[in-house]
Amino acid sequence: MTSLPQLQAKINSGINNLSFPLYPAELYEPIRYILLLGGKRMRPALLLMACDLFEGDVNKAISPALAIEVFHNFTLMHDDIMDNAPLRRGKVTVHEKWNANVAILSGDVMLVESTRLMMQVDDHLLRIVMNIFNETAVGVCEGQQIDMEFETRADVHLDEYIKMIRLKTAVLLGGALKIGALIGGAAIADASLLQTFGEELGVAFQLQDDILDVYGNPEKFGKQVGGDIISNKKTFLQVKALELADEKQSAELKNWFSNTPADPAQKIEAVTTLYDQLNIRSYAWQAMQSYANKAFGALDAISLPDTSKQYLRDFADGLLVREN
Amino acid sequence: MTSLPQLQAKINSGINNLSFPLYPAELYEPIRYILLLGGKRMRPALLLMACDLFEGDVNKAISPALAIEVFHNFTLMHDDIMDNAPLRRGKVTVHEKWNANVAILSGDVMLVESTRLMMQVDDHLLRIVMNIFNETAVGVCEGQQIDMEFETRADVHLDEYIKMIRLKTAVLLGGALKIGALIGGAAIADASLLQTFGEELGVAFQLQDDILDVYGNPEKFGKQVGGDIISNKKTFLQVKALELADEKQSAELKNWFSNTPADPAQKIEAVTTLYDQLNIRSYAWQAMQSYANKAFGALDAISLPDTSKQYLRDFADGLLVREN
Repeated sequence: MTSLPQLQAKINSGINNLSFPLYPAELYEPIRYILLLGGKRMRPALLLMACDLFEGDVNKAISPALAIEVFHNFTLMHDDIMDNAPLRRGKVTVHEKWNANVAILSGDVMLVESTRLMMQVDDHLLRIVMNIFNETAVGVCEGQQIDMEFETRADVHLDEYIKMIRLKTAVLLGGALKIGALIGGAAIADASLLQTFGEELGVAFQLQDDILDVYGNPEKFGKQVGGDIISNKKTFLQVKALELADEKQSAELKNWFSNTPADPAQKIEAVTTLYDQLNIRSYAWQAMQSYANKAFGALDAISLPDTSKQYLRDFADGLLVREN
Repeated sequence: MTSLPQLQAKINSGINNLSFPLYPAELYEPIRYILLLGGKRMRPALLLMACDLFEGDVNKAISPALAIEVFHNFTLMHDDIMDNAPLRRGKVTVHEKWNANVAILSGDVMLVESTRLMMQVDDHLLRIVMNIFNETAVGVCEGQQIDMEFETRADVHLDEYIKMIRLKTAVLLGGALKIGALIGGAAIADASLLQTFGEELGVAFQLQDDILDVYGNPEKFGKQVGGDIISNKKTFLQVKALELADEKQSAELKNWFSNTPADPAQKIEAVTTLYDQLNIRSYAWQAMQSYANKAFGALDAISLPDTSKQYLRDFADGLLVREN
């Protein structure tokens, strides 16, 4: 078994060794720039871990793992344009450093380059791996579109919200794991179970993120508490609260979420109080547990000895910090 | 042999039968919209013609032909954002009808969908076809980037200009023909010759476009005469003229090309006069002939009887109207 730091080192060295042409500079410079901004490389690490789980040759999975990371950064580059985001990982975003046209076109090339990297698998896997990758890619785009639509909608249902986060963030984890498993020699059934593990874990992880935004310890969470409330972002908590609220509470919530006061402290306090009245934290916690259980159930069903799955179980346990 | 109208009918029916999900509507509606704006479907028709040339089953080439058309329309959707274009084929562009974010994301999905369509080839062709397609896609993006860079440069060399139009418009014709030939059962050498035919023909065709912009019969050309001059667009004529101009002529040209007068008639006349003094029309014509000759030379070298190549030769002759 290869340790997570060893896998991450392989990915970082792979990223550093990716070579792009020097010309035209404004097409390829932004790609180098965003890829070297860092990040935890969690998605490609999962792909390698999946390959390793089935005792496959991890070196054969490096290019597909890089494909996942390049694809992920393509989505960040384009999402940052759409969200008008000034910063990414503390650095200026590509569309701000260069301009939106550069970010559009460099992102396009990254999508093609991710396909090229993903194609570096054995012939017998090429079609199935590319089918999974393309389906995942379409799903991520659908998720981003639905997320953008949510910004202008007040009537989002909980199942729509779950569908959105599943597409926008979870399917890529599932896809990466499934591809890694197949490269590692897994049977389709096991690879699909691992995909389910990743996807349900991804949903649980996003729900945890929603909870921690309001109820997290800011020092451990590393983000401003109430950030989602300040920016009127749709979260499980907001959607569930609007679902359960009586007329008066609903009016109050809608009023808060249609404003962006200069001093947000009062807004955060008022919304949190409403969440507390409605017991939202507990609903969110239960939902998160339910998706985590689905994830672990799928992992349990994989036809490998429990001992070899312990590593992924520990990894998932580490993601779901249970500290809230 | 299948006639061009028959091939175009197959493509149009294929486009009409492409099915995209209904949800999320703002992701898929723009794809249906741009694909149904029409166009001559020349690129997919070339792919089918190439398959037909080698007596392949044209029906097996339909999906890859649609892939080329979907890819081409993806580039149009994103280019229109970058060029801030209000109209495409006389209709409102996607980023104007919806917004830039919609056009970015729908374009992204089109690129993935074009990959999915291109993958619908027999297993033994999957890798080579996808390699050609990805290389072509990257080339087209590079061409667009170089074209954008040209807008802010006064020192573009002729070889850079040719490289740009080769990437931006010609490689896709070459790629489509090569893929079609391989699906039709051609040997690699013949498929590559047909690719060269398409690429050199594409360059010749773009040079003709440059010439006709200034010297064309507006009724036959179907565009405003002098459109490139009005918009200060880099063309073979402009770049060659700046290369040959003496100091005084160069200053005049640069002055005209740094302005956009409300009434462009005087500008068009003055620039055309300078082109005439420098004999630019003849240089452009010779260059166009030279690329056309390269194209026909490659076609001649393909190991098929002349009679079966006559159809493509006639098709190319039709594109290069020789009316100038």
